[in-house]
Amino acid sequence: MRYGVNYTPSTGWFYHWLDFRPDDLARDLDTVAELGVDHIRIFPLWPVIQPHRTLIRERALADVETLIEVAGQRGLDVSVDGLQGHLSSFDFLPAWLSTWHRRNLFTDPTVIESTAAYLRRLAEACSQHPNVFALTIGNEVNQFTGDLHPQPFPATSEQAGLWAQTMIDALHEGAPALPALQACYDATWYNPTQPFTPTQAATIGDITAVHSWVFNGTAQLYGADSFPTQAHARYLVELARAFQVDPHRPVWLQEVGVPRNVIAPEQADAFMEATFANLNGAPDLFGITWWASHDVDPALEDFPPLEYSLGLIDQAGKVKPEGRKFAALIDHARRTASAAAEPRPEPPTEDPRPILPLDLDRVGGRTGLAPGGVFWTMYMRQARTAHPRIVIEGAPHA
Amino acid sequence: MRYGVNYTPSTGWFYHWLDFRPDDLARDLDTVAELGVDHIRIFPLWPVIQPHRTLIRERALADVETLIEVAGQRGLDVSVDGLQGHLSSFDFLPAWLSTWHRRNLFTDPTVIESTAAYLRRLAEACSQHPNVFALTIGNEVNQFTGDLHPQPFPATSEQAGLWAQTMIDALHEGAPALPALQACYDATWYNPTQPFTPTQAATIGDITAVHSWVFNGTAQLYGADSFPTQAHARYLVELARAFQVDPHRPVWLQEVGVPRNVIAPEQADAFMEATFANLNGAPDLFGITWWASHDVDPALEDFPPLEYSLGLIDQAGKVKPEGRKFAALIDHARRTASAAAEPRPEPPTEDPRPILPLDLDRVGGRTGLAPGGVFWTMYMRQARTAHPRIVIEGAPHA
Repeated sequence: MRYGVNYTPSTGWFYHWLDFRPDDLARDLDTVAELGVDHIRIFPLWPVIQPHRTLIRERALADVETLIEVAGQRGLDVSVDGLQGHLSSFDFLPAWLSTWHRRNLFTDPTVIESTAAYLRRLAEACSQHPNVFALTIGNEVNQFTGDLHPQPFPATSEQAGLWAQTMIDALHEGAPALPALQACYDATWYNPTQPFTPTQAATIGDITAVHSWVFNGTAQLYGADSFPTQAHARYLVELARAFQVDPHRPVWLQEVGVPRNVIAPEQADAFMEATFANLNGAPDLFGITWWASHDVDPALEDFPPLEYSLGLIDQAGKVKPEGRKFAALIDHARRTASAAAEPRPEPPTEDPRPILPLDLDRVGGRTGLAPGGVFWTMYMRQARTAHPRIVIEGAPHA
Repeated sequence: MRYGVNYTPSTGWFYHWLDFRPDDLARDLDTVAELGVDHIRIFPLWPVIQPHRTLIRERALADVETLIEVAGQRGLDVSVDGLQGHLSSFDFLPAWLSTWHRRNLFTDPTVIESTAAYLRRLAEACSQHPNVFALTIGNEVNQFTGDLHPQPFPATSEQAGLWAQTMIDALHEGAPALPALQACYDATWYNPTQPFTPTQAATIGDITAVHSWVFNGTAQLYGADSFPTQAHARYLVELARAFQVDPHRPVWLQEVGVPRNVIAPEQADAFMEATFANLNGAPDLFGITWWASHDVDPALEDFPPLEYSLGLIDQAGKVKPEGRKFAALIDHARRTASAAAEPRPEPPTEDPRPILPLDLDRVGGRTGLAPGGVFWTMYMRQARTAHPRIVIEGAPHA
């Protein structure tokens, strides 16, 4: 079980790729390592590495490798996302996809080929470093399509799935030994118009990633201190597992955080504690990676307000109360796990928990899975006693 | 009278700003200086300098200053464009103007304020260097609006004019001693749907810039070796002058080149010679700046084919026949000018040439000015004898 943070550099946010200074990053990661985490997730800016369709900048790849090394020197493993792409409301897209060169990220054959080339090269570079443990296509690439949000690149679910598999293949070609995965924001699970589907999320690549953000309506509907808000991350983990073909495929809670727009500072402790408690016992949970390491610099205006306070560490490099809480929760979880591991025999291969059947057609499709939906409500009712195992019934779904 | 080139770096094209290596640029500019030019026009990438609305990168400004110094060491003056923006079909726009942060470049007050801040800082940096002689808002910023092309940012002519004046003010605030100007592609003169108008181009800022590209229909309609094709640059210079309030305001032929899609290699010599011959005697012509210094690297795919062969110097740093011709034309023009200057008395303050009246309403507006249009045809007929002075009659135009 891995514990880590999504690394948001304190100086220059992700623009640090344009002003790459390893010393700044080293100072950040010294503090990150103090939290007791074993890994960070990092986010190269795609247009900085591949500013032209046929130009992949060697120096930018070298910078990624340097950051990986700086992390390694502090005992931190690294997961690398490729297509950023989307980061905290900002979309970094290369000029070769816009205006005169407008082409669909997900469906244009030339774009697909060139994007795959980028991921292949990035994977190759990452594979040189023993502390890299996973590669993600890109952060919430599904933000670029669907009806819910600005959608520069329409795609059908078939096109989305084909694209995701092609990108996974590229990562595997570049780094055959590394797990590769895709990362979707929760429209995949909750929104019927989102082309990237739950089944794709749960079957393409080697790990299923879920991103748990309770500002998605959960905290607004139920309250910051409510059970559904505190169990939201676990629910996504169980929902993801239900769509998997391989029941033991790892599920990674790749993003979870305390958004200040729906959780007050004095509620943060309880939210974090209960989120961990609810995740306790989730089978084959790969890891918990908190968003984020550092607060965003207020001098960088225009972010949604909540983004400025998501850090476990403040702008000055001081660990915040949330950071201390996270460190304590990791420590406690590790000690409990190691105490439990000793006397206990091999776990049963069959999940012994009570079953909650899910028939997508009967619950109204993905809308029924969303906060307040039919299935969601059934799950939350049953989970108060014990988190059930969700088992899909009825027609198979793409 | 200035002669120069638009500097297109041989290594990495404008992506050199991401991999800034002064030695590469110095080698390019050694060859440029051999052509006998007195200046270069340079193009920072806006999103590299201002990747976030409230982040103007000092190191990127320092790189611009270094390039200015490298040019100065070779006796080259420098003109700096700010908002790139549009370059050879590629549009470099910052993430803070797109998708979730979609805001109109020309009309959003916050964007206007922040863009002005960028130009002010860029102008300040440039003003430290005695070899900088002019500042342009940005290369063909009017590509971003109008009905003819992809138009991410609609604007009325009133908004366009207000925007341009605000940007000129910002450049003046940053560099009070330097001429500031805007640069429009020729839709401003020829297309009635283009918000940026001829009068604005001819009155806002300190210099009027024209960009002469005969692939705009001229060469297609009349042929590469035709008089209108060879006189196109001069026509634009005269047209620009007609819209000026100050008759002696300088007009700068800021871009002119030999596009291979309409001019065959064996026709290049005649085109260049005749373009220069037609420009001879144009009053208050500020300068001729050829596009471009270097061919675009064929490894950088996706450019319109003609862009790969526009250089006066090839990829390997060898001066092409066009480069030698340009050098010879400059040399000849300078010697003719200095021979003429000696015996001749002060030129008359009143332009003695025959007048060609222009009533915009009567010729069908800007359509009548375009290649093959009513007024265009009248001009070209009369210009075969001698280039007339265009004088606007009828209603004044915005």
